[in-house]
Amino acid sequence: MEDFIKIVLSHPSHPGNIGSTARAIKVMGFKKLVLVKPKTFPHRDADSLASGAIDILKSASVFKELSAAIQDETLVYGLTARDRHFALPVLTPRQAAEEILTKPQKTALLFGSENGGLLNEELNFCHKIITIQTGNTYNSLNLAHAVSICLYELRAALTVAPKITEQDGPEEIPISEIINLADHFLEVMESVDFVKHRKIKYTKTRLVNLFKRNMIENSEIRMLRGLLTAIQKKS
Amino acid sequence: MEDFIKIVLSHPSHPGNIGSTARAIKVMGFKKLVLVKPKTFPHRDADSLASGAIDILKSASVFKELSAAIQDETLVYGLTARDRHFALPVLTPRQAAEEILTKPQKTALLFGSENGGLLNEELNFCHKIITIQTGNTYNSLNLAHAVSICLYELRAALTVAPKITEQDGPEEIPISEIINLADHFLEVMESVDFVKHRKIKYTKTRLVNLFKRNMIENSEIRMLRGLLTAIQKKS
Repeated sequence: MEDFIKIVLSHPSHPGNIGSTARAIKVMGFKKLVLVKPKTFPHRDADSLASGAIDILKSASVFKELSAAIQDETLVYGLTARDRHFALPVLTPRQAAEEILTKPQKTALLFGSENGGLLNEELNFCHKIITIQTGNTYNSLNLAHAVSICLYELRAALTVAPKITEQDGPEEIPISEIINLADHFLEVMESVDFVKHRKIKYTKTRLVNLFKRNMIENSEIRMLRGLLTAIQKKS
Repeated sequence: MEDFIKIVLSHPSHPGNIGSTARAIKVMGFKKLVLVKPKTFPHRDADSLASGAIDILKSASVFKELSAAIQDETLVYGLTARDRHFALPVLTPRQAAEEILTKPQKTALLFGSENGGLLNEELNFCHKIITIQTGNTYNSLNLAHAVSICLYELRAALTVAPKITEQDGPEEIPISEIINLADHFLEVMESVDFVKHRKIKYTKTRLVNLFKRNMIENSEIRMLRGLLTAIQKKS
């Protein structure tokens, strides 16, 4: 179970937060830290704050692009503060932890930069949103604290209810295939001058949301991509 | 409720942890920070890590003795790691949060120094113990993270968990619109010779299933049909 969960920090700006995240991962019994374009890494502040979790830090994967970092994941949760509106399901950390335990699969918890959180193009990779409940006046939770709280909930769920039930559900589709399908749609949209009248980024988000919500199957992806290719050949 | 809870740090050695604790207190909607013989305070690291919670830091009470710091409290929880033996009840953060909410009273959460946790003479002041669940290999949770997790549980207990929400939907879509969308796809499929290789009826069923499962929205139906029309005009 612990092996299926990746903590992904996208564009972290403070190396101390990277170290502190590594420590939280190890304390809660997890292993995998993934960094996308960290501003400064490696760095002595990261080492220092990792404390006894220097092994997690040393074995962290570092990528230049989020798409490469999570291409094999079949379930991606994005962390955001309250009061943003998405066409995605919004869960508490506890609800997400329970959900993750019911069907272990390659799962990423994706955290945005300290400065602005997750960008819209990063949210495109997310199947669901996790929002940590806070008080009303100030909701700027430290990045590594947010990681700790999410992993604490997973640990608590594993401790209280270690039962893991495998359910027959929809297929597990890597998020990269959904992004690729949306990109293919966009190509065709541009080629028939359909997307002119719309913002490309917004259209991509809508397509990705449509297919994520969908729990689209592999054979359906193949069918739609085949159609798109046929349209492109014809024109 | 939030006014009855004090976070007490006894002998904290890193000013950064004091600042980070202040931030956690404010984020989770609490107010009172109490310091017992901090090694270095005030300090710019504390100010820096408090971020937008500088008010919590400025209004912190500082005492030389724990006895003075919590003399009015009627319920004191001490935080310790696992595997220490006490003649005190041991609770999870969640159990403690539920207990605190059932009978609001002057309550302190007492955290020991980063180096060795609570000393035996400090545990004498505690009615109960809170132990945060961790993994098995390494249980050295950062002080401020431990505060965050406890206050997060209190905040979660105070907040009725929202139902998992799918924003902007699902709308109620007449099945006829889904059929019409599938038919429109089929028309385009035929026009680009894509459907030749497949059985039309079977393809239609697959498309309808895809969009039903999807809980597709009205605006998405309009987008896809607009695209299909654009493709037809172009060819």
